Amino acid sequence: MLVNGRDTRSIRLAEPPRVPPVPEIIDQTRLPHELRFVLLETLEDAERAIREMWVRGAPLIGVTAAYGLALGARTDPSEGGLESAARRLSDTRPTAVNLAWALRNMVEKLRPLAPADRATAALEHAAVLAEADVTACRAIGRHGGEILASLEAAGASAGGLQILTHCNAGWLATVDWGTALAPVYRAHRSGLPLHVWVSETRPRNQGAGLTAWELAEEGIPHTVIPDNASGHLLRTGRVDVVITGTDRTTSAGDVCNKIGTYLKAVAAGDCGVPFYAAVPGSSIDWELGESEGALIPIEERDGSEVSEVRGLGPDGRMTSVRIVPLETRVANFGFDVTPARLVTGLITERGVCAASQEGLASLFPDRASGEDTRG
Amino acid sequence: MLVNGRDTRSIRLAEPPRVPPVPEIIDQTRLPHELRFVLLETLEDAERAIREMWVRGAPLIGVTAAYGLALGARTDPSEGGLESAARRLSDTRPTAVNLAWALRNMVEKLRPLAPADRATAALEHAAVLAEADVTACRAIGRHGGEILASLEAAGASAGGLQILTHCNAGWLATVDWGTALAPVYRAHRSGLPLHVWVSETRPRNQGAGLTAWELAEEGIPHTVIPDNASGHLLRTGRVDVVITGTDRTTSAGDVCNKIGTYLKAVAAGDCGVPFYAAVPGSSIDWELGESEGALIPIEERDGSEVSEVRGLGPDGRMTSVRIVPLETRVANFGFDVTPARLVTGLITERGVCAASQEGLASLFPDRASGEDTRG
Repeated sequence: MLVNGRDTRSIRLAEPPRVPPVPEIIDQTRLPHELRFVLLETLEDAERAIREMWVRGAPLIGVTAAYGLALGARTDPSEGGLESAARRLSDTRPTAVNLAWALRNMVEKLRPLAPADRATAALEHAAVLAEADVTACRAIGRHGGEILASLEAAGASAGGLQILTHCNAGWLATVDWGTALAPVYRAHRSGLPLHVWVSETRPRNQGAGLTAWELAEEGIPHTVIPDNASGHLLRTGRVDVVITGTDRTTSAGDVCNKIGTYLKAVAAGDCGVPFYAAVPGSSIDWELGESEGALIPIEERDGSEVSEVRGLGPDGRMTSVRIVPLETRVANFGFDVTPARLVTGLITERGVCAASQEGLASLFPDRASGEDTRG
Repeated sequence: MLVNGRDTRSIRLAEPPRVPPVPEIIDQTRLPHELRFVLLETLEDAERAIREMWVRGAPLIGVTAAYGLALGARTDPSEGGLESAARRLSDTRPTAVNLAWALRNMVEKLRPLAPADRATAALEHAAVLAEADVTACRAIGRHGGEILASLEAAGASAGGLQILTHCNAGWLATVDWGTALAPVYRAHRSGLPLHVWVSETRPRNQGAGLTAWELAEEGIPHTVIPDNASGHLLRTGRVDVVITGTDRTTSAGDVCNKIGTYLKAVAAGDCGVPFYAAVPGSSIDWELGESEGALIPIEERDGSEVSEVRGLGPDGRMTSVRIVPLETRVANFGFDVTPARLVTGLITERGVCAASQEGLASLFPDRASGEDTRG
């Protein structure tokens, strides 16, 4: 999507080309105040980028890990080396399923090759996964865009279709286009009048910092609200549709996503507003079925993300301010699970389906059967 | 309640006594990092203290306004002077009903008196209103404490009864004891094992800053969470009861309270967890009935409260950091309305009742009939 009017991706090979090529990412912890690309030259660089959340978003984590494995293969292309690199990368974040999926996919692709060929093949295959992500997101945009167009045709609010989203499921969370925001970009580019309510998404404020920045660069009207305000907007008829991303969706349609998603879904249900999750096939956990959303491990992150808020200080530098008394205990859960019954539909790259075993199986018969043909 | 082990109130007459006496308040915008009392010497001081939210919380706003009117009566005790002072104070905050109620009560009390006697009588009557607030809150603590004891007896989680609250409805929101926290203080002092989940309450973080500070001073176990986390805690069985305050409750039991309250109520309902609002009689709007919660004016505050977060900077001084891109549009609604159907019960100074016309009328037959005997 656009940055300063130029098409930009969240991860790419550094230009001018290096030999061997080196991927680079946007350090998202500096956004929205500074756009800085960072080279990933080693496996350790990739590990740190994921753990420190320079990159985040389930699909982008998966692609970054794939590049990380490729970097690892440059140093140790042995089978043990691949396995160890995959394990290290996999340990960085526990909730997103794309991470484990991308690493497994890479290792399976590389294992049959001669060790000497693995580093080059790994880089090529990481690029294939990145392209596959872009293709999937573009398709989600197409299918979700049709939903937005129908809702708008059925009668949107003054000021265009009013869309509420949470966290950042835009192109910064993927390679390009995004998941939840792909339909918004698609609809906006096709001329549909719309406005996005952006939930700030404490504790890390990815809505306030990343989604607002993305939308501004693309020229889409939007308003940032505290997370607390979504219920009031829903209750007072100021939201036509809610769309979020997902970090892991069970085969029965339970949606695990950024903490706070469930609150929006349950309020949307109470107010009769449709709630959609944008779900790339790579984020579906086929091993978890009916009522097993509760089995998804929920990452607990460092308490300082809650007790301190990071932003641009009066001197123009990034600063953290403390908002709780010293020594106060805080809890910092990264995700929650929205039960399938509260989800109007899942927008996947293969179309839109009900949030249920049957719904997902109808779109992914090859995967629902247990056979994995992803990638 | 306790501060540094000593009983403290949120508003009091300055010691050593001045002639004429001068009220003082805690500048709550400095908490939890600094405890500073500020003298209110003029009507304008009281106006500013309410508008700038040095004091906040519906009951405390009411009492502060009463003292403000008393200060105004020192300069201009004429009927026109009283009316003008009442209007200015009333215009500071639109949502809480206690403010208008306290001012009306004061003016009615003073009007029959000779102008020369009004300033002294006003100060005395403001003190009466302050004492009445303490009495009401203590009674709310007694009635609500019984609910907590019953819930605990029925089987609480490990670690004691798990209570979720929102914003600050503690003694800092009233004169002493608080509304939603009064039952917690009462239960804790009677030895009931309990733990409070404190929702930080963006955009002004009254949970993180004020409730956490109050609970720490009183020695009550608590954990601060981002507002987004309450749904996850409810879904995973980590909350036994939700209690919040209210800024205005309709005679049919719709509860208008700090933005985000509705999200907690609807999630509590979805999870089968009881949701109570602590409602002093002075915060009931008898003029709004069935389905008229939507008529309550919802204050919209300055966007800088959303785009910037205030806290203790690395240099030990209060600092604001910006969390959204420059020029981003933000919205800042102060309150939302929780429909009566989501409220398990209202805890008033006269007992606990259903959130309904019948429930409130059973406890307040004198007021529900339209006759106002408050104060």
